[in-house]
Amino acid sequence: MKTITGREENYSQWYLDVIAEADLAEHSVVRGCMVIKPYGYAIWEKIVSIVDSMLKEMGVKNAYFPMFIPQSFLEREKKHVKGFSPELAVVTHGGGNKLSEPLVVRPTSETIIYDSFSKWINSYRDLPLIINQWANVVRWEMRPRLFLRTTEFLWQEGHTAHASLQEADQYSLKILNEVYKKFVEEYLSMPVYTGQKSEGEKFAGALRTYCIEALMQDGRSLQAGTSHNLSDNFSKSFNVAFLDEDGLRKNVFQTSWGVSTRLIGGLIMIHSDDKGLVLPPKIAPIQVVIIPIRPNQAILDAIKLIKSDLNGLSVEVDLRDNLNPGEKYYEWEKKGVPLRIEIGPKDLENNKVVMVRRDTGIKSDCAIGNIGQIAQEMMESIQKNLFLRAEEKRNLSNKNASSWSEFEHGIKTGGYVFAHWCGEEDCEADIKKKVKAVSRFLPFEAEEEVGPHTCINCGKEVKEVKRWAFARAY
Amino acid sequence: MKTITGREENYSQWYLDVIAEADLAEHSVVRGCMVIKPYGYAIWEKIVSIVDSMLKEMGVKNAYFPMFIPQSFLEREKKHVKGFSPELAVVTHGGGNKLSEPLVVRPTSETIIYDSFSKWINSYRDLPLIINQWANVVRWEMRPRLFLRTTEFLWQEGHTAHASLQEADQYSLKILNEVYKKFVEEYLSMPVYTGQKSEGEKFAGALRTYCIEALMQDGRSLQAGTSHNLSDNFSKSFNVAFLDEDGLRKNVFQTSWGVSTRLIGGLIMIHSDDKGLVLPPKIAPIQVVIIPIRPNQAILDAIKLIKSDLNGLSVEVDLRDNLNPGEKYYEWEKKGVPLRIEIGPKDLENNKVVMVRRDTGIKSDCAIGNIGQIAQEMMESIQKNLFLRAEEKRNLSNKNASSWSEFEHGIKTGGYVFAHWCGEEDCEADIKKKVKAVSRFLPFEAEEEVGPHTCINCGKEVKEVKRWAFARAY
Repeated sequence: MKTITGREENYSQWYLDVIAEADLAEHSVVRGCMVIKPYGYAIWEKIVSIVDSMLKEMGVKNAYFPMFIPQSFLEREKKHVKGFSPELAVVTHGGGNKLSEPLVVRPTSETIIYDSFSKWINSYRDLPLIINQWANVVRWEMRPRLFLRTTEFLWQEGHTAHASLQEADQYSLKILNEVYKKFVEEYLSMPVYTGQKSEGEKFAGALRTYCIEALMQDGRSLQAGTSHNLSDNFSKSFNVAFLDEDGLRKNVFQTSWGVSTRLIGGLIMIHSDDKGLVLPPKIAPIQVVIIPIRPNQAILDAIKLIKSDLNGLSVEVDLRDNLNPGEKYYEWEKKGVPLRIEIGPKDLENNKVVMVRRDTGIKSDCAIGNIGQIAQEMMESIQKNLFLRAEEKRNLSNKNASSWSEFEHGIKTGGYVFAHWCGEEDCEADIKKKVKAVSRFLPFEAEEEVGPHTCINCGKEVKEVKRWAFARAY
Repeated sequence: MKTITGREENYSQWYLDVIAEADLAEHSVVRGCMVIKPYGYAIWEKIVSIVDSMLKEMGVKNAYFPMFIPQSFLEREKKHVKGFSPELAVVTHGGGNKLSEPLVVRPTSETIIYDSFSKWINSYRDLPLIINQWANVVRWEMRPRLFLRTTEFLWQEGHTAHASLQEADQYSLKILNEVYKKFVEEYLSMPVYTGQKSEGEKFAGALRTYCIEALMQDGRSLQAGTSHNLSDNFSKSFNVAFLDEDGLRKNVFQTSWGVSTRLIGGLIMIHSDDKGLVLPPKIAPIQVVIIPIRPNQAILDAIKLIKSDLNGLSVEVDLRDNLNPGEKYYEWEKKGVPLRIEIGPKDLENNKVVMVRRDTGIKSDCAIGNIGQIAQEMMESIQKNLFLRAEEKRNLSNKNASSWSEFEHGIKTGGYVFAHWCGEEDCEADIKKKVKAVSRFLPFEAEEEVGPHTCINCGKEVKEVKRWAFARAY
């Protein structure tokens, strides 16, 4: 019974099979939308809970804004409306009547939130204003993919207002580094690069977009989170201004930033294997599963003790009597539970259990008295191993390209290709047409190579001393 | 500076003033929608966190379903679509194109969820299926009122499937009594009656609707939560069936139940006074505020100690230097913080502080060493006092009516009027026209009076031995 397609055979199908077999989510009858099933939603709840705590620790306050936005609001920021227009869902009728002005379902909430900010902010004393909301958003999706690209998705969107451009810039970087990168690396074991987006790839309406990007197992990059320095682009359109200490009225400088259910897509793709889902312990809804073999009272009693020794971990004991142990192993492997503990009469006789790590598949015996400590150590070890494994894989596939043929070959074989580039939108569109890849980021951490250099594609002179990262992407 | 209208003067304006002055929420530019501001949202987060824990304790699992529902889905259950049609928001365009079938924004999710249930349920082993989602929903609102009636609101909606009608009925009552009533009474200090809705007032598509109802200070009733026994009404339309142990394919019996941001409206209206918001300690985002008077280093040091003695409580120390203590008292009173602690040089000399309860306004001295214990006791005392005060007020206004004139007078003077009633929809509509009140519930706990009785309005013979509760309502 092979229910999961191999990664080598068909990566896209493998991804869908992993999701189906782990019972995470399914497509809805509503095109482009998904149903997040309980096990998948439990992962989202852990993400929400941890990210929310990290944000609150930084003084961020949650609020909630309407999901309907008057169409005219979007139009006030020209680049913003241009960027989002093709993706909008539009409500034209409400309460049985045609609306005098259509409402769009929020694709993101800058416009409706900054309308409120314009009323909330009066003086420099009201700054910085730092607000977050957890919400559903809608961006009409022509090629939906569970978790990665769905018409409706769940996310948090942070929105801030500051007295200076510099403060706004620092804050957007702080969120990127101290919340997003930290969360994704520490909890999801997902190594990310941080950097800045190109003019063509930045958020519609932003001065600059910063991002975290992770490499998936098929060599494609995933944008896992973004943080935008909006400058005063929106504050001018929405009249968000403050009376400064010098008595002058000034527009605020703003940031916005978000991570979404897309993170779950990345989590699945970066760690899972041909047996199914692999979850890092810190994000796993179930961290340890205990499976009794030919259970008798003595074994059930031993399991009770073991469970209390695993205090602090989330433990499931699988006592179902309509499945044999092999079927249970198979099922919990597919669900990505980091550690399996097997205990049968022979084990109990020898006062031990068998432990099986999901990440490596390695089996080991463990004395019953040591289970609590060993399981804790394994949690840490698995968490770390998954990170290092993904990091090594990514680093091994990194390439520098100095010629177009190197570049093209690099893109086709997967992973990040670092190259000098002019940064221009037309040139990026041209590259995309040729190799189906765009720039992912200008890395924060990268060697500076004294120039001038020439653009990898158009050959123009390039002043930027760092190489851009290119890759095919999700 | 009087910013809050008195309750006696204008109750509706008082309600809006309390919300504005406590900075809980505001109307949005989008008609009927509200912005929940950080302090209001913090109350909602506490509600979510507690109710979610109570549900999980009962084995409920969270999931997430699309907010868009094909219009044809709603039409499959005739009474359901009839009930909700006038309130729908309709998406006709998506991604720049006219949709072949319009989508409605969920007013509630029975239809879209039971479409999933029909795929998830195969055999009796899959039952009971017990799912909850936290979501935003939209019901077009012609007469919006912050928290109580808004076009978009936040809620949880639970949905279950059972093998028998009896089990479904028991489950819907279990949620009503063990989650909703318990939560609202213990945490919101809001005494509620439990009972069953009339045919005219039940949920569109339900066999029976059970409810919790609370009396507000102006003598109107608020439906604070509902739990529906849906029988097999939806399972027939959505083909939600299971193979029973006897090998027969049967439709499941279902329940659905919800509480929403409306609870915050009730919370505000039941406890607050002419000074502003009054919050029960268990739901207050800030439980204690400490206000220094002419702060010097010794006072700041003392406050640090006091704060650590208040360990476990949510404490705010108001050190702002642009407001005097009186202004701060006034502000925190308006925000409903249960306990205020004042400490000035004189107090410190005498090794004490002044404590002021928000519910009664009573001031008392407290030795610094006893603050931790006394504050804890006060939290419990305030929590209890608010409940008893509301319960007493409600009970004092309860009336039995045996004639139409008693009934009419009872309704006009406010509070619940208990009367024998035929239960018929036409008769209820007639009562509504005459006195702007409808039946609220047939109480679970009520004296049974041997009949036959005559209907308070139409004079028909009534078999039901209990009196129905009538009141004007929110």
